[in-house]
Amino acid sequence: MVREHLAEMVDQGLVTPTGLISHGRGEAFDYLMGERTIPPALEAERAAAAFLLRAKKPIVCVNGNSIALEPKGLIALAKCIPAKMEVNIFHRTEERMRMLIEYMESQGADGILGRDPDARIPNLTSDRALCTKEGIFDSDVIVVPIEDGDRAEALIAMGKIVISIDLNPLSRTSKVASVPISDEISRAVENIARFVGELRGKDDEIDSIIKHFSAVRTRRDTIGYICDSLMSEFKEN
Amino acid sequence: MVREHLAEMVDQGLVTPTGLISHGRGEAFDYLMGERTIPPALEAERAAAAFLLRAKKPIVCVNGNSIALEPKGLIALAKCIPAKMEVNIFHRTEERMRMLIEYMESQGADGILGRDPDARIPNLTSDRALCTKEGIFDSDVIVVPIEDGDRAEALIAMGKIVISIDLNPLSRTSKVASVPISDEISRAVENIARFVGELRGKDDEIDSIIKHFSAVRTRRDTIGYICDSLMSEFKEN
Repeated sequence: MVREHLAEMVDQGLVTPTGLISHGRGEAFDYLMGERTIPPALEAERAAAAFLLRAKKPIVCVNGNSIALEPKGLIALAKCIPAKMEVNIFHRTEERMRMLIEYMESQGADGILGRDPDARIPNLTSDRALCTKEGIFDSDVIVVPIEDGDRAEALIAMGKIVISIDLNPLSRTSKVASVPISDEISRAVENIARFVGELRGKDDEIDSIIKHFSAVRTRRDTIGYICDSLMSEFKEN
Repeated sequence: MVREHLAEMVDQGLVTPTGLISHGRGEAFDYLMGERTIPPALEAERAAAAFLLRAKKPIVCVNGNSIALEPKGLIALAKCIPAKMEVNIFHRTEERMRMLIEYMESQGADGILGRDPDARIPNLTSDRALCTKEGIFDSDVIVVPIEDGDRAEALIAMGKIVISIDLNPLSRTSKVASVPISDEISRAVENIARFVGELRGKDDEIDSIIKHFSAVRTRRDTIGYICDSLMSEFKEN
């Protein structure tokens, strides 16, 4: 069902054909994790909520695949923090930007940024670098679902807290992210939003979560979990 | 480059959009194996050559993705055995069958089967069951690159030796195959063709390879290899 929906989004011009391949790579990792949120991902989602509540200028960044997969969940997450939203895409055309923004507005988004970029992410070539000053450029904590590695690195180099949602725990994005979440986007944004609600106002707990979170440990636990599940079929024999 | 080529093949109608997602899933496993032929895959490729040399009616079965990815290698493999070739696709239309067969002919294939099916694979619903009697139906050893699980199971139920080429060692196809090869299609067909050349006429060696090959061991070794490589990043710490 998700696959047919994405194929339709390609016909409409919102998702690129190479975006479908990238989705398939994610599917493989989701499959290895049993298509559910595994404990290290849940811990990272709770940490993401803590960082977002502590942020001065939080933002949720969206692209073609994330908009096609979970527009309403992303909007709900941005509203509950509250955070700004900005569209940023790898294969940029003005037409595609317009369509993506209009699609998000049709799903309930207000004031979504990205159509009129007035800043650039340093150290990043191509149109991926284009962003708005009031949005991505000035943000301190940024959620990047399904991000490419170059851009994730460039955002880290700007000193931002980068929260990635990327099913592949070995991707460059996951490796550089401040909070790497290896979970399917719909489950991830729903969990983060729930933790935002639970943690709001609990400053000591937020401090403690931020202090004890480790991106390396999260990734190691995620990969360990995948290996255990891979080998389980043979351990029974 | 492969991704752009596949996207173009979608525009031409040879590959389906969901075929791109399926390619992405394979890419993830290729990545986990370091994008090279790992030892258990090489052993399976050698066994595949032995089974193909021993076959009375060998056939190489091709679909949209395999034709888009490696037409020449598949044709070279079929010619060197020699084996028949037949096109069989999941999303069948007469137009798409015609295009795929003409594309294979433009790449050098002769007498490729599939346009005029006169038999059905038992226990398989939908047009995937359509095949030719002289080709897939009567074959004893069948190479199926990038096959769906239902069809692989139905071919096994017919008593055939099924050689699968599927990067995912956990897929249903890999689990049911007589010879599951977890390798990228271009590398796999090149390796099998080389082993066919090396083993031809060496009957004792062919017998020994067939006798000692184990599909379960191959899959367990493949998965073990993937886990070791997944964990290696953390073992250094």
